[in-house]
Parts: sequence; structure tokens; C-alpha cells
Amino acid sequence: MTIKADWIAVDWGTSNMRAWAMSASGTVLAEGSTDKGMGRLTPAEFEPTLIEVAGDWIDGPTTVIACGMVGAKQGWVEAPYAAVPCPAMGHNFVTAPTQNPDLTVHIIPGVSQASPADVMRGEETQIAGFLARNTGWDGVICLPGTHTKWVHVSADEIVSFQTCMTGELFATISTHTVLRHSVSGDGWDQAAFDGGLADAMARPERMAAQLFSLRAQGLLDGLGNDAARARLSGLLIGAELAASKPYWLGQQIAVIGAGGLSKLYVDALAAQSAPATQVNGSAITLAGLTAAYRLLKG
Amino acid sequence: MTIKADWIAVDWGTSNMRAWAMSASGTVLAEGSTDKGMGRLTPAEFEPTLIEVAGDWIDGPTTVIACGMVGAKQGWVEAPYAAVPCPAMGHNFVTAPTQNPDLTVHIIPGVSQASPADVMRGEETQIAGFLARNTGWDGVICLPGTHTKWVHVSADEIVSFQTCMTGELFATISTHTVLRHSVSGDGWDQAAFDGGLADAMARPERMAAQLFSLRAQGLLDGLGNDAARARLSGLLIGAELAASKPYWLGQQIAVIGAGGLSKLYVDALAAQSAPATQVNGSAITLAGLTAAYRLLKG
Repeated sequence: MTIKADWIAVDWGTSNMRAWAMSASGTVLAEGSTDKGMGRLTPAEFEPTLIEVAGDWIDGPTTVIACGMVGAKQGWVEAPYAAVPCPAMGHNFVTAPTQNPDLTVHIIPGVSQASPADVMRGEETQIAGFLARNTGWDGVICLPGTHTKWVHVSADEIVSFQTCMTGELFATISTHTVLRHSVSGDGWDQAAFDGGLADAMARPERMAAQLFSLRAQGLLDGLGNDAARARLSGLLIGAELAASKPYWLGQQIAVIGAGGLSKLYVDALAAQSAPATQVNGSAITLAGLTAAYRLLKG
Repeated sequence: MTIKADWIAVDWGTSNMRAWAMSASGTVLAEGSTDKGMGRLTPAEFEPTLIEVAGDWIDGPTTVIACGMVGAKQGWVEAPYAAVPCPAMGHNFVTAPTQNPDLTVHIIPGVSQASPADVMRGEETQIAGFLARNTGWDGVICLPGTHTKWVHVSADEIVSFQTCMTGELFATISTHTVLRHSVSGDGWDQAAFDGGLADAMARPERMAAQLFSLRAQGLLDGLGNDAARARLSGLLIGAELAASKPYWLGQQIAVIGAGGLSKLYVDALAAQSAPATQVNGSAITLAGLTAAYRLLKG
């Protein structure tokens, strides 16, 4: 059975690419993916990679809408940042060069902030998807991940945002420092997470001294790896919440992302008397790409 | 010409080992080194490695005094920690097993602290060396490095200490995160260091949000790599000074370590109106090993 897409939605990040065959009304007809992320491709390799994943869905002129690092300087074509304050989704799509005359590829630009200097690519599409489903929503959106974003949204615009490298720091510290001996494995100790979170929130200025203590507690007190890795996560997320307090304090909050990590943030915010709504990240990306399609087709 | 050591001083860390042929009066007769650190050796391989480096100096019964990770659980033989408060150097040396009947190897134990959990191995010998040269000195000793130590010394005892993983974080973040693109090279921008230091000291709770901005400033403002890596160093040392403020505030301070890094700490402390004395690390290790020899023979 052949699937003919009315249009194709693409989420193309540094490490992975996902594509969906879409009907004009916004139904998913099929989906595919590859690990050929932006980080592994030269500009000329994007179109063949798209054809590998989505070629079977293309029969005649087809619109493709893509978000993420595909629009970075090292991507398919650079889609210059929109500067805040700006709508999450504008009319500033950039067309990528293609060999196949049937393909029209629109790339959604990222968003930048001059001071403090900050950038996002991909999250703006998730924010647009969230706002498409929650018209007139005002508040702060947290998008946890490798580079967690805190985004202040008001009157349908991104007002300001702040990135914390929490996910990447956790991964790097867990893998490449002396703490790798203390935190290996994949178990979890919720009480240790809660303790790390509370300590980092209460005394964020002591952060730099907290990390090595995980190793020392292992040597002296037999602290287990599950507890050490959960406490490391709690310390880093606590440091992030401390740094982001001007964002979330007293605001309506939505946390958009993968389930397990998002729940850590929602629970951590709840412990600070800051209730947050948890939203599925994958579905909201597709909602954002669909919002872009509708904007384009007017 | 053959050198016969009256005794042999050894600084045996995770990555490297250095040895000195010593006269009874404390003069250096010869020195050697190897990259066969504790991390690369099984217990049975320590003695052959010592012979490789120092075998030519041994003629008849010889005392060897060693400090550092050689006394860790994974080292030659475990030298259990002394717990604070305690003298930097006690009589609690541990004898390592040897095949060569002429060798008597004494290992200097590390020091531990129960709460907050912390450990050191090697720095206690530097502290003992510093105190041997500065009798009755009271104050705080900072030993910058992979794992920087802040040590409160009073009445010839180590009262308390705190480790910050600043050096390891700088190396890991510079090598294994997205910031590697922004900070590669080896140049230096002193103003950028000073700015990072001041920002981290003034608002330590914002630390988690400062790092990604280095990448964004590169993308948006053309921040150069020299400035980015100096600012990263300033941010991390600033976070450490913020976490260590209860240690150094209002105290007499000595900074012991390699020249360039120690000078960063001395200058950073001076910017906080906290004058510190800079002390050469290598010479002070040898002074500490000599103090151990005198204690043993005393």
C-alpha cells in the first residue's frame, strides 16, 4: 500500500531526524526516522537523507516543513534567528535548496536573545504547538533536555528565555569525571534526588563544593550508585531552579518534554510550591509543525 | 657516577609518579619520574615501577616515603584516612609489602572528614611541608588543581576542608560539551576572566544559566575563543570562591600549587580584598615528604 503525503513534517536535530507523512487536515499517515542528524551531514547530504526516510511518501509536488538544527549555520541552509520579543512562529521560513523539483522545503528559524545572549532552534516550534493548543496562554514554558530552556511567553510572543546546560552537564559529569565511578548504573533513589534538590535550592552558592562530596560519601559512607546519581541529578536540577527562579516564581508553568525527565521537573517545582502542567514533547513538536503548515497555507 | 640515596621521596598520584634520591640531611641528589600513575597499576606492579625509576639509587637497606593515591584502596596498599581534626602528618604511616628485602616503603595516609564527607590524599603532605616551613601558621590553605582543596589549619592541625571539582569541571566542559567549539585553543583574555569571576561571585545562584551563554555569545556576538575560555575559567573559579567564602573570608590565606593556576586564585582572591601568599607546589611536596622522614627517624 502506498502512502501519499499531502505534506511532510520533519524534526531534524543534531543527533536524529524524525519525519511524518501528513494529510492536509493534520492526520499522521506514516512516520520514519534516522540517526543522520545535522551533526553528521554536509549541506548536500540533507536532501538525499530526507528522500531515504520520506521518499516513498512523495508523489508530485510536496511541501516539507522542518524545524531544529537543520536551520543552523552548519545545517541544510541557515535560517537566521528571529530576535525576541517575537511570535514563536512567524512568516520568516527559509527555503532550502533542492535537486528534486517536486520538493519545497521550508525551514523554521530559531529564536535569539541579545542580552543575556541566548539561542534556541526547535523549541520555538514546540512553543508554537503548545500555543496553538492553548490559545492566549501566558506564563513560563520549561523544556527540559540536553540544554533546558525556560521561556517567558506573553500575548502570543516569546518575551525572553534562558538556557541551562543541565542535561549535558549531568551526562558529562556522569561519564567523564571521577564521579563516573560513583554514579554508574541506571537505578534511582528518590529520597537522594529530593535531598540534592533541596540542598542546591537552599544554598545555591555552595554548588561547586557539593559535587566531590558524592565521591567522598561513596568512599567513607558507602553511598550507593543509585543514591549518588539521583543526588547528582537533584543537585544540578536544583541549581537550575535556583538560577531560573526569576522565571518561574509566581507564574503559570508548563513543562514540555520526555516523560521521565519532565516529571522530575514537575515534582521539583511542586516541592517549591510552583505547580506545573506536564505536556508530551513529541506530540507538541508535531502540533508546532502543523501550525507552521497552516500559517504557510494561510 | 653512582648515586646512593639515604632515602627516597615519592609523590605517586593517579596519573604520574615522581621520585627524588635524598641525602639524610634533606638534599636532593637526583630525581626521576614516570607516567605509570596509580590509575594504571595493579598492587603488584608498584614495586617494579619504583625500581624502574629509583633502582639505581638503592644500595643496601633504603627507606622510601610515598604520598598520594599510592595509598588508596586501589593503590599499593591501603593507608586508611586519618579523620579531622588531626595533624597534617601523624605517626600513622603504613608499610607496603615488598619483594626486595632492602626496601622499606612507608605510605603517608590521606585525611578524611565525616561531614560534609570529604577526602584528600597527597595534599596533607603539602600542608605538612608548608607547616614545617611556617611553624605555628594559622589560616586557610588553598591547593588548586583537578580537585581544589580549601583547608582550615589551626594549632598545627587540619580542622576542616572542602573539595571543589573546579579543575576537572573546566577540563570536562571544555572537552566534552557543546562549549568545546567555543573555548578551544590556549589563548587568554584577562578581562573576560575578570568578568566571569565577578559575575559568578556577585550572583552565584545564576551559575547554571551562565555557561550556555558562552556558546550563544559566540554565535550572536562573535565572542572569541580566548575570551570564552577565560570567562569559563572565571565563572568556575568564581563559583568556587562563592562556595568557599566561609573558608577564606577574613583569614590568612596561602595558595599552594602550579604557578599559572595558583596566580589565578591569588588574583581572584585579591579582587575580593583577600590577600593570599603564593607557594610553589612541587617544592612544598618535597618539604612534606622530608618532614615525614624526620618524624619517622626522629
